[in-house]
Amino acid sequence: MIILGIDPGFERMGCAVLEKNPSGEKLIYSSCLISSRNDAHEKRLLVLAGGLKKIIKDFRPDTMAIEKLFFTANQKTAMKVAEARGVALLLAAENNLKVLEFTPLEVKMAMTGYGRAEKDQVRKMVLAMLKMDGKGKLDDEIDAIAIALACPTKNYPQ
Amino acid sequence: MIILGIDPGFERMGCAVLEKNPSGEKLIYSSCLISSRNDAHEKRLLVLAGGLKKIIKDFRPDTMAIEKLFFTANQKTAMKVAEARGVALLLAAENNLKVLEFTPLEVKMAMTGYGRAEKDQVRKMVLAMLKMDGKGKLDDEIDAIAIALACPTKNYPQ
Repeated sequence: MIILGIDPGFERMGCAVLEKNPSGEKLIYSSCLISSRNDAHEKRLLVLAGGLKKIIKDFRPDTMAIEKLFFTANQKTAMKVAEARGVALLLAAENNLKVLEFTPLEVKMAMTGYGRAEKDQVRKMVLAMLKMDGKGKLDDEIDAIAIALACPTKNYPQ
Repeated sequence: MIILGIDPGFERMGCAVLEKNPSGEKLIYSSCLISSRNDAHEKRLLVLAGGLKKIIKDFRPDTMAIEKLFFTANQKTAMKVAEARGVALLLAAENNLKVLEFTPLEVKMAMTGYGRAEKDQVRKMVLAMLKMDGKGKLDDEIDAIAIALACPTKNYPQ
């Protein structure tokens, strides 16, 4: 099972490709797609879509694990994130990826056993599970890896 | 100037293609793209994207006029609408359409001179301006036409 983990955003979109099989999990790729604030919003969506398309083409994931959004105080930002999320979902459908959605709480629970865990605890668990030092990895990238790790393999093709 | 008016939605997306030139405006096409509630959300986005792509290919608009979203009490629905809106914006960018965004208030002001006009008043103005009877046209379709009509032509290629 090859999972594409997505931490949706319109400024930065965390992406991780994780191979999961009964013997364990292996990180194949991760990155943070970044769009320029000098570009119009639709151009930013185009840049993110281009990056995602390349990742899907290169690594042929069968599943997209993507974070569910919750509305925050800043609804204008939340809406733009939702628009970027819509682009990721469209690409999943275009490429026949199964889509599984997880709340931040579910990801934290899966990673640390505690739904209100701090960001740093999740990061530490991600790095420990994958035996990485995490150097140079942005938070959004780590979050995308965590979402992919949180994705259950049972009932899905290995 | 050929304007593609979009009333964004994930259940129904209103679409209108309007030709505007100094002598007046002419409705070339309008429809309401409908997605099935039996489909997964990402599949629904794919269906809407397919419909939009065909309209863009068939009518080659140069501008997309699209309604800005405001958050309502139902934030879950608003987020899904934003995701569909993200898909429309991506297609605009992919096809080099200029994107202009209008609030519902701006559309109502442009159509009736009154920002708090009722839906029915806007509908009547749309039908009067285009000399249509509006038979069989859904609200979302009429809204998309209104958004295209509200789009100013000045400063843009005719």
